[in-house]
Amino acid sequence: MQVKLASSYGFCFGVKRAIKIAQINKGASTMGPLIHNLDEINRLKDDYQVGLYKDITEVDPKSTVIIRTHGIPKNDLKTLKLQNTKVVNATCPFVTTPQQIVKKMSEEYYSIVIFGDETHPEVKGIKSYGKDVNDVHVVSEVEELANIKFKFDKIASIAQTTKNKEEYLEIVNKLILKHREVRVFNTICDATFENQDAANELSNNVDIMIVIGGKNSSNTQQLYRICLKNCKASYLIENEKDVNLAWFKNKKLCGITAGASTPDWIIQNVVNLIESI
Amino acid sequence: MQVKLASSYGFCFGVKRAIKIAQINKGASTMGPLIHNLDEINRLKDDYQVGLYKDITEVDPKSTVIIRTHGIPKNDLKTLKLQNTKVVNATCPFVTTPQQIVKKMSEEYYSIVIFGDETHPEVKGIKSYGKDVNDVHVVSEVEELANIKFKFDKIASIAQTTKNKEEYLEIVNKLILKHREVRVFNTICDATFENQDAANELSNNVDIMIVIGGKNSSNTQQLYRICLKNCKASYLIENEKDVNLAWFKNKKLCGITAGASTPDWIIQNVVNLIESI
Repeated sequence: MQVKLASSYGFCFGVKRAIKIAQINKGASTMGPLIHNLDEINRLKDDYQVGLYKDITEVDPKSTVIIRTHGIPKNDLKTLKLQNTKVVNATCPFVTTPQQIVKKMSEEYYSIVIFGDETHPEVKGIKSYGKDVNDVHVVSEVEELANIKFKFDKIASIAQTTKNKEEYLEIVNKLILKHREVRVFNTICDATFENQDAANELSNNVDIMIVIGGKNSSNTQQLYRICLKNCKASYLIENEKDVNLAWFKNKKLCGITAGASTPDWIIQNVVNLIESI
Repeated sequence: MQVKLASSYGFCFGVKRAIKIAQINKGASTMGPLIHNLDEINRLKDDYQVGLYKDITEVDPKSTVIIRTHGIPKNDLKTLKLQNTKVVNATCPFVTTPQQIVKKMSEEYYSIVIFGDETHPEVKGIKSYGKDVNDVHVVSEVEELANIKFKFDKIASIAQTTKNKEEYLEIVNKLILKHREVRVFNTICDATFENQDAANELSNNVDIMIVIGGKNSSNTQQLYRICLKNCKASYLIENEKDVNLAWFKNKKLCGITAGASTPDWIIQNVVNLIESI
């Protein structure tokens, strides 16, 4: 089977940075999974003894805690600092920005809209920086705006870093028509765009498309949706073990892309396997 | 000929207010035409001796000067005040708002985009409030954004009060995708929307459509464009003298709308004439 990689795929800047931080802090523990990739987390555990706290209550105050790339809620960070735990911050700088925007805008009496998934750790963290969290409204689609009661007429809007830009504009446009001022922050990460654009192009020109990434990774799911639109034979896998040989019957060219938290060694394993078919 | 008026048409709040101010200040002179309607300006001259200065250099410092609804450039206002001229401000409050926004935003180091017509007095006035007028960019269509060199990465955008909302969103969307923060002020006036929506509805259901208003009036021209889209037999007239009887041949129902600076007495003259056909 012939294989073609997307012109842009895999690890983004924030993930590369977080893994470096974890490797330097051998024996530390992350607050929540460092990135959305179980295989890479296991590698860090095996090779660098990096532990994992699922919850703030599990933390040993005398340990070193690494803040995950997606950030954590403001009060969890406060708790860690109050109990004098050594904190190493691996929050992606592109996530720190929306956290600070929410803090500043709510202090300036703007109602806040976050375009994102309410349950995603990044969004939970960002939302927690609002002065009044009841006036920080998370919407995952434009229709949800209709039900919101804003405290102020001035709105500030931000987006989860991995969200789709066109959908963000839809939400923003609805807000602009209804409010006298909308302060729009474009917090969507370029790396996400680049992987998405490359996946869009490649999936139009192959017989089968493989998307490698964590199934709970927001940006991986978006890549998968984009590919599926262009190529019916698109499959989302976490690693080479998920590959089903039957998918490749009568196919000639296989495109491959990977989410922002998929390490190169997993991608290489998948490429090797598919090339051998 | 049967006539149907749009459900909303004619004078807006700002124009009604300005005419009242002119009538109270008998014998004063306006700085530029008070509103975009020559017939109404002549009526104010005949009945209330309201004069007209075409330019700041014409002003008699001892006269009373009425600022037109569209506002005037900041420096002209300064000159009037420096020479102790009595100034009566008839600037529409919906125009004062964008003037103040431009002032504030340029003081806070935002580059500024105005969606409007560079030559329109409202836009000239608004633009003049920028701290650095070279960084206040007037665009009349989205394509013009490509040629702009902004001084800052943060953008504030406003629109001429009579502009089309969909076209404004197009411009704003382009800005959002390119800049980390776009502060969008919705300065388009509701009265304009209401007249436009009503014209859109009516022009779909008549045989001929008459739009009454000043030919240099931005909002009248927009009404005309909307009507022409729905009804090929649409005509823009300033008053009943422009009516051409040939237009009405084989037509049964005539729709009528009027721009925000068209007085009721002119509309009534047109209605009377067409009903008599």
